[in-house]
Amino acid sequence: MKVTISSSPAIAIQLPRMTTRFIRCSTSPLSNPNPNPVLRPELSIRVGTRLVPHPKKVAKGGEDAFFVSGYSGGVIAVADGVSGWAEKDVDPALFSRELMRKASSLVDDEEVNYDPRILVRKAHASTTSTGSATVIVSMLDNNGILKVANVGDCGLRVIRKGQIIFSTFPQEHYFDCPYQLSSEAVTQTYLDATVSSIDSMKGDIIVMGSDGLFDNVFDHEIVTTIAEHKDVVETAKVLADLAYKHSVDFYFDSPYSIEARNRGFDVPLWKKALGQKLTGGKMDDITVIVAEVVSN
Amino acid sequence: MKVTISSSPAIAIQLPRMTTRFIRCSTSPLSNPNPNPVLRPELSIRVGTRLVPHPKKVAKGGEDAFFVSGYSGGVIAVADGVSGWAEKDVDPALFSRELMRKASSLVDDEEVNYDPRILVRKAHASTTSTGSATVIVSMLDNNGILKVANVGDCGLRVIRKGQIIFSTFPQEHYFDCPYQLSSEAVTQTYLDATVSSIDSMKGDIIVMGSDGLFDNVFDHEIVTTIAEHKDVVETAKVLADLAYKHSVDFYFDSPYSIEARNRGFDVPLWKKALGQKLTGGKMDDITVIVAEVVSN
Repeated sequence: MKVTISSSPAIAIQLPRMTTRFIRCSTSPLSNPNPNPVLRPELSIRVGTRLVPHPKKVAKGGEDAFFVSGYSGGVIAVADGVSGWAEKDVDPALFSRELMRKASSLVDDEEVNYDPRILVRKAHASTTSTGSATVIVSMLDNNGILKVANVGDCGLRVIRKGQIIFSTFPQEHYFDCPYQLSSEAVTQTYLDATVSSIDSMKGDIIVMGSDGLFDNVFDHEIVTTIAEHKDVVETAKVLADLAYKHSVDFYFDSPYSIEARNRGFDVPLWKKALGQKLTGGKMDDITVIVAEVVSN
Repeated sequence: MKVTISSSPAIAIQLPRMTTRFIRCSTSPLSNPNPNPVLRPELSIRVGTRLVPHPKKVAKGGEDAFFVSGYSGGVIAVADGVSGWAEKDVDPALFSRELMRKASSLVDDEEVNYDPRILVRKAHASTTSTGSATVIVSMLDNNGILKVANVGDCGLRVIRKGQIIFSTFPQEHYFDCPYQLSSEAVTQTYLDATVSSIDSMKGDIIVMGSDGLFDNVFDHEIVTTIAEHKDVVETAKVLADLAYKHSVDFYFDSPYSIEARNRGFDVPLWKKALGQKLTGGKMDDITVIVAEVVSN
């Protein structure tokens, strides 16, 4: 059975901002104009979201969480609760959801000042749940600059005129063990975040997601999907459905199975002798946020 | 015969700054401290360079050009002259070399103000040679932020703790036809540059190059090479030599040949029926700049 659930308060953190499936955010007037301006109309993002829980976690809505905020040019973020906590009788969704809830309440914090790394620091510091999560936060500032802070293996792509022009990269300790923020002191902090940015332009498409998206869908499939769909809500749905389809396909040679083989994991030797190889998608929670940069 | 030539004034633009094979650049004290400082010691880069011309262009030193400047935290740039101009009896090296010469003289221009896109604009505007070139410019500013402006298919990677954390992406009109700056009015301008940035840290390794590097050497080979060599001069030499070795190997399944097949180019059908496929490196000028971020 194929299970897809639209983004709704029931499966993500419960904030009025989050329940919106289509959001248009405006930048405020330039308060700090660039002395060398590349003329940029006031930019904002239109956002579509989709969360498809792991097939075995449908009842609880999965362990991913995300939020979308209309602050300034727009803020989008995803956190992926580390599932290993379930073995310690801790619900992995608690940490990721609280982290997103705290982050969403801090987007306009004066100290954050459009710096997603500071947002990660403050949200992490105020999260009290036990658990851990990977997290990615992206903020569009007043100058049209999209800033990204990333800890772990959530991801973000920016597509312009049919070509990827920007991508984050997963950080990991070893295969399938990503960097993560945690309730424990021994893991990563905001200082481990990769912080990067891209000057956005009208028409740019931003695709953010948990590893459930990027482990199951190739970048070229993301580019093709974007070319075929204009509406961000529809695009998010199509990408999440494609990721889900691949994730439950034992024969699909996914980004995840290719990476596994590159790291030395494969079927037993006797199967290799028969020409078989490790294939298949990765069953996981799948969160997809698609944002289009528009001018007001 | 294998031909490798170290970077020297004879094959790149002739500036005192450029002739240095090992450069250590200091940032000036923070003039505009971040209100939310992530404590960053004063950062600079140590740079090693290597240019290996196309085997048929050794005598003239190839058509790539580059420069390294000690301004602020350091500036590195590569331009790749578009070879098609030779068919019009124009030396493709003239444009790329003049563009780099002009850019290197503008790094401390007040209007540029650490913005590599403005540097590209001003350098392009002051270049009078006929021709065209792809170009990438990267500037490390006073806050340790590495800003990159890219037009075409030169590239840059940042490697931290053995993992790629940042990459540019080639821009092209179609396969093998990159975006380019030109003496003609019909091509791209600084407005087409992809502008991105990454917060650098001590120990980060920056690898910049022309497509002669990235078409012949996989990212995982770059990561492995960096892990095996500590010295930036040595690393640049090893990477350039590896790119050269692959570029003249008809049987190496290079990034270039894989991309060609993905775009529908391949050997004739009768060869495919015999199990053959399009392989080989791409013979080209190869420029490699390796920079290590160090604290003073």
